[in-house]
Amino acid sequence: MENTAAPTVPGAAAAQGGTREPIVADAVIIGAGPVGLFQVFELGLLEIKAHVIDSLAEVGGQCVELYPDKPIYDIPAVPVCTGQELTDNLLKQIEPFDPTFHLGQEVTVVERRDDQRFNVETTAGTRFITKTIFIAAGVGSFQPRTLKVDGIEQFEGSQLNYRVKDPAKFAGKNLVICGGGDSALDWALNLAGTAESVVLLHRRDEFRAAPASVAKMKDMCDKYEMQLLIGQVTGYESEGDTLSGIKVTGADGVTRRLPLDHLLVFFGLSPKLGPIAEWGLDIERKQLKVGTERFETNVPGIFAVGDINTYPGKKKLILSGFHEAALAAFAAAPYIFPDKKIHMQYTTTSPKLHKILGVETPVFD
Amino acid sequence: MENTAAPTVPGAAAAQGGTREPIVADAVIIGAGPVGLFQVFELGLLEIKAHVIDSLAEVGGQCVELYPDKPIYDIPAVPVCTGQELTDNLLKQIEPFDPTFHLGQEVTVVERRDDQRFNVETTAGTRFITKTIFIAAGVGSFQPRTLKVDGIEQFEGSQLNYRVKDPAKFAGKNLVICGGGDSALDWALNLAGTAESVVLLHRRDEFRAAPASVAKMKDMCDKYEMQLLIGQVTGYESEGDTLSGIKVTGADGVTRRLPLDHLLVFFGLSPKLGPIAEWGLDIERKQLKVGTERFETNVPGIFAVGDINTYPGKKKLILSGFHEAALAAFAAAPYIFPDKKIHMQYTTTSPKLHKILGVETPVFD
Repeated sequence: MENTAAPTVPGAAAAQGGTREPIVADAVIIGAGPVGLFQVFELGLLEIKAHVIDSLAEVGGQCVELYPDKPIYDIPAVPVCTGQELTDNLLKQIEPFDPTFHLGQEVTVVERRDDQRFNVETTAGTRFITKTIFIAAGVGSFQPRTLKVDGIEQFEGSQLNYRVKDPAKFAGKNLVICGGGDSALDWALNLAGTAESVVLLHRRDEFRAAPASVAKMKDMCDKYEMQLLIGQVTGYESEGDTLSGIKVTGADGVTRRLPLDHLLVFFGLSPKLGPIAEWGLDIERKQLKVGTERFETNVPGIFAVGDINTYPGKKKLILSGFHEAALAAFAAAPYIFPDKKIHMQYTTTSPKLHKILGVETPVFD
Repeated sequence: MENTAAPTVPGAAAAQGGTREPIVADAVIIGAGPVGLFQVFELGLLEIKAHVIDSLAEVGGQCVELYPDKPIYDIPAVPVCTGQELTDNLLKQIEPFDPTFHLGQEVTVVERRDDQRFNVETTAGTRFITKTIFIAAGVGSFQPRTLKVDGIEQFEGSQLNYRVKDPAKFAGKNLVICGGGDSALDWALNLAGTAESVVLLHRRDEFRAAPASVAKMKDMCDKYEMQLLIGQVTGYESEGDTLSGIKVTGADGVTRRLPLDHLLVFFGLSPKLGPIAEWGLDIERKQLKVGTERFETNVPGIFAVGDINTYPGKKKLILSGFHEAALAAFAAAPYIFPDKKIHMQYTTTSPKLHKILGVETPVFD
């Protein structure tokens, strides 16, 4: 039915740019958090196959990104689970519907076509022509938290890096790596072997990173293979267009100069509404306005579910997102199957749903 | 805070009639199905203790009554569970909130008091004075399906029985027991020892009852300890005020006379809206009209959640009932704590909610 020639490796489409044929789809879900995943399920029950896009490289959204191991207590009929367990259970639940995931890419373009469908494009160059869109983007797409030093942003992408795309570029260089989490520690340990020098800079002598990584880091410091500094970046120095060093203020209040070739910053991710703000949707306090009957935005065919939407009485609860996803699926079905009457059926009793779910219908009197 | 001197044995209050002191409550939930149970949870998070009333003797509502062993596939993040498992998980989830259950009794009276609270009364004589009411009664209260034979209803409670309250009354009597489910088989096997005679009457030679019970029944028939007849009741005979026999039409189309002292009918339970229709609530097609912001009925302080309510877009899904219960709890809180500002908190991060849930707050950086 659909062209599902989507990249199987996340981001694989990037190199091909916009030259590939667009994917023709019935439903594109933006956001692979719990509500986006459950949207796959509710669409699947109505025999609508979904493509799911997320800016993160993994499914699970903020549940996995922000609190994978913290217990959640208010998922109905699940007395306690972690964000990771919730995600794993939802992935299991949607298995029968075989969604196509397009991860590590952000949706930049959403525009209405003359045939009433939508063009959708991502930062990886993946393109879709779709009948419906479900925005389940939670608090927005996750972007790296930036270093707050006036003027330093001019070096972003050259000497100031928030992501590592090509580790080879740092070989033989003098690196300063900022942060105290797993990303900072992992890259410090990883690059210490090939860089000329590595300084790990963290605001205090406690780390969120895995204890084993912290122990390894301290061991390497003892062996002079890298160096740990406690302090914060409060300024920088440049020579022409080149960042030559940063100013680091320590706990003692003294500011020292630290020369470098590259500055790598891993302060975690923070959510941003991003390009969604530019698609012509009614927005109220950074949220998308929807009605409670269809959970559709002001643009017919574009639905918004979960934390990103707002309506009278809205509470940002995962369980509310699940309800919204169910009603949005029913509301969307006529866009996809204009001639089909949608009957309400129950997974407990419907042989048709059992077939869709790939389970056997039990025989009862 | 509340007077929780509720009967610990379901129905124990019946003998005392209306002489006991009413229970002073913040919230009374009518219906102990999945949505009623989750209403306990959502109220509990807001520190509101609930009393739960159900006409059935067990919690679980139609999930347990109608399909305890049938798998349900559309509870979010629960790929598959039975109605019984769903109920058990919800009971576990609400354990920290220690609700008081009043089972095996139907709510008959709901009336507004001069002090704006409500008087609530049940068939067991349990009385409440409550600030809020949550009707989570699903498709209504479950009543035994009756025998459809004109005029036979005059013997109900004397010789025609849909429930067995006092088995001793059938000792030495000639009994006809109708039905093919567990209730019919269990009572046939149970009473065959003490009754003068037992005839099990079922419309066909297949049974919904447990296979072991069916085997036992057939074995007893072989030993002439009871008798199985295939057919349906199509009439009755009486002598004065006494039911003397029934007319049974077999698969062969022939009608035969069957004398008896007592007729016991177990055709299962069917839901009825019942007294709810008389409480002054706006009703549309046997459902209670609510808004989607508060899930409150036209009577302030009375909320309706789950299958019993209706609003634009309503789908009778358990997951929708969960969402409705959450929003109803927030809407109800000001009736119970008029001076308290209710803040939205998350079970993942709120130390206050962790205290209420009785769990430890994990320490993270």
